[in-house]
Amino acid sequence: MSVGPAREGEPLLPGVLLPGLVNCHCHSPMTLFRGAAEDMPLQRFLRDVLWPREARLTDEDVYWGMTLACAELLGFGVTTTCEMYVHEEGVLRAVLDAGTRCVLTPGVMDVPGWLSWRERLERVCAFHDEHAGAHETVEVGIAAHSAYTLPLDALDEVAAAARERDALVHIHVAETSDECAELEAAEGCSVPALLARRGFLDGRVLAAHAVWLTDDDLRIFREHDVAVAHCPQANAKLAAGVARLADMLELGLRVGLGTDGPAGNNDLDLWEEVRLAALLARVRACDAQVLAAPELLALATRGGAAALGLAGVGAIEPSRSADLVLLRGDDPGLVPVVVERDLLSHLVWSGGGRLVRDVWVAGRQLVRDGECVTIDVERARREVQERAVRLARAPSG
Amino acid sequence: MSVGPAREGEPLLPGVLLPGLVNCHCHSPMTLFRGAAEDMPLQRFLRDVLWPREARLTDEDVYWGMTLACAELLGFGVTTTCEMYVHEEGVLRAVLDAGTRCVLTPGVMDVPGWLSWRERLERVCAFHDEHAGAHETVEVGIAAHSAYTLPLDALDEVAAAARERDALVHIHVAETSDECAELEAAEGCSVPALLARRGFLDGRVLAAHAVWLTDDDLRIFREHDVAVAHCPQANAKLAAGVARLADMLELGLRVGLGTDGPAGNNDLDLWEEVRLAALLARVRACDAQVLAAPELLALATRGGAAALGLAGVGAIEPSRSADLVLLRGDDPGLVPVVVERDLLSHLVWSGGGRLVRDVWVAGRQLVRDGECVTIDVERARREVQERAVRLARAPSG
Repeated sequence: MSVGPAREGEPLLPGVLLPGLVNCHCHSPMTLFRGAAEDMPLQRFLRDVLWPREARLTDEDVYWGMTLACAELLGFGVTTTCEMYVHEEGVLRAVLDAGTRCVLTPGVMDVPGWLSWRERLERVCAFHDEHAGAHETVEVGIAAHSAYTLPLDALDEVAAAARERDALVHIHVAETSDECAELEAAEGCSVPALLARRGFLDGRVLAAHAVWLTDDDLRIFREHDVAVAHCPQANAKLAAGVARLADMLELGLRVGLGTDGPAGNNDLDLWEEVRLAALLARVRACDAQVLAAPELLALATRGGAAALGLAGVGAIEPSRSADLVLLRGDDPGLVPVVVERDLLSHLVWSGGGRLVRDVWVAGRQLVRDGECVTIDVERARREVQERAVRLARAPSG
Repeated sequence: MSVGPAREGEPLLPGVLLPGLVNCHCHSPMTLFRGAAEDMPLQRFLRDVLWPREARLTDEDVYWGMTLACAELLGFGVTTTCEMYVHEEGVLRAVLDAGTRCVLTPGVMDVPGWLSWRERLERVCAFHDEHAGAHETVEVGIAAHSAYTLPLDALDEVAAAARERDALVHIHVAETSDECAELEAAEGCSVPALLARRGFLDGRVLAAHAVWLTDDDLRIFREHDVAVAHCPQANAKLAAGVARLADMLELGLRVGLGTDGPAGNNDLDLWEEVRLAALLARVRACDAQVLAAPELLALATRGGAAALGLAGVGAIEPSRSADLVLLRGDDPGLVPVVVERDLLSHLVWSGGGRLVRDVWVAGRQLVRDGECVTIDVERARREVQERAVRLARAPSG
């Protein structure tokens, strides 16, 4: 990453090679519902807008929603996503066709109009058992949507099923203060305390959001080595709050970044999450020295990989997979470089999708000179457009 | 902006034409010092890093710093900036060569190693009188750096000089709580109250930052029709705080967005300011319905133009200048469009420099298919790189 005096006729900086970025919490097929959550609180969005539309989804809808998302993710240099969604056959087919890396955690929920949680869990386990270990770029886990959308025995059984399989279990935790207050009223304790008490945290757990944590909750996470997917933009946009990122890192928690789903956030730009993570932490702490550029870039790469338990990605090292992003070096925002760390801070603070030139996953080139190699983006745009119009219509009769 | 069913073989959305974005508060030639303020508080950065380097600047340095900034601004679709800086001859030459629109407000300060404020004000007035009205795309104002870098009689004289000329006067106001506390201790009132008392606010005033305002301060701004350049990212990154944007808008203040200088922020990306304005306002209010997409886009266009008093830009209307940005329509982030307002929310929440294809200022094309027409960007990068290395060296002897 050093920039010497360029010779006449040579570019000042030919390019920058980074490990592919890791998005730790996403419902990417929600590209089908992009923007549908504008300007409303989370619970109303879920109940009145999202869930009714999702009940009408087909595998093919989800295939196209995920395919469009893969094009978008690759455009931002994101090579790995952890997906919590339904219609996992569609998600799987899309990521295999696109070639992106995925930790696929099909979601178990208990909401009206869906399969019962027990039937759904059976299906998810069967999906796991069929596909775990079968694809170089896909790992399979299980998601329990949250403690507020599942009864306690469902949480227990999801956790047990995941533990049996040594699978990652992915769950929304303490996203809004309302959710926490309701659970506290019903169970007499915080969400993390409840999950710990029931043994949910004894497996490999990825907690998404984790906005409303007390010091005790943080200690529970530390004791159980719970990883956190920090989603600063989704939390701010939906006015859920600001998670205690600096405290989590100080405690040594494994933390990665997530965009959350594009229905709410609304894009899959992980560069913005990197910056917003720092900005909100600094505002929160009234301290401009919280979270320097190297830590921030690590959150989006090495940290995200660690949060997902993927030892093979997140860094450029002989032991890791060739998940790589080549950024163009000719952007005005990448100069000057006076001391070596300048380039790192320019990447963090001035970087973005406009710099992404080439992307590889597991050594396979997926983006070449800014164009997707494996995805017909215009087709995916049309499919999503048409399907979104259909899904938004209330069912007739 | 309507998106109908596309015919076979035709693109779903050929492109989106927007008014050029307006950056209301910037010290753009600080591209020369990009990243030099990493991870330190504002006052230390100014005193220990920035001012000593700025004292070594030449007109030619500033010309190249501003030229690189123009390339960067155009890459983000920003067609107008309000610049507070020194070496105004260099800034002027750069914006005339690049063709970008500029409200040029040369700065008057009183810090060691610089001209006395009185000598500086004389020069700035002479510059104003030579160039005001002389260039189609440049307006000339005057900047008083702040109430903490100028004695009271200097503030009086800057304001009087600006009023005499009906020139915009641009000033940093209440950026940090320390600055406010010190002024309160010395003068027994807030910065806005002091400025009002001395008649400073009787002219055309643009207040940058305006983070620490009381209800009374807001009323003072309303009474004097003071415009505000809201700089959410600079304020968050340097941990200065979060300005009361929603309150300002509710009161009817003229508000635009600013990136501040790239030494601190560190880029000139106004799209991020649009989103961050909403995110911070929502976190502040704990309300996901604060600042919807139409208001947000207006801040960056029509609102910014109004804040600068430029009736001729900020919208696409027969009465206004052809300052235009054509965005590519083929991005994954711009679909689906189910109801018409979706496209507007996609632009606000998924938009960015990667979409900018063509840019015009006053009808002259400055960016064509992503490439600057008027600027040799690689030359500007080299010049800034070499000059930045020289400026960072402590003077020998």
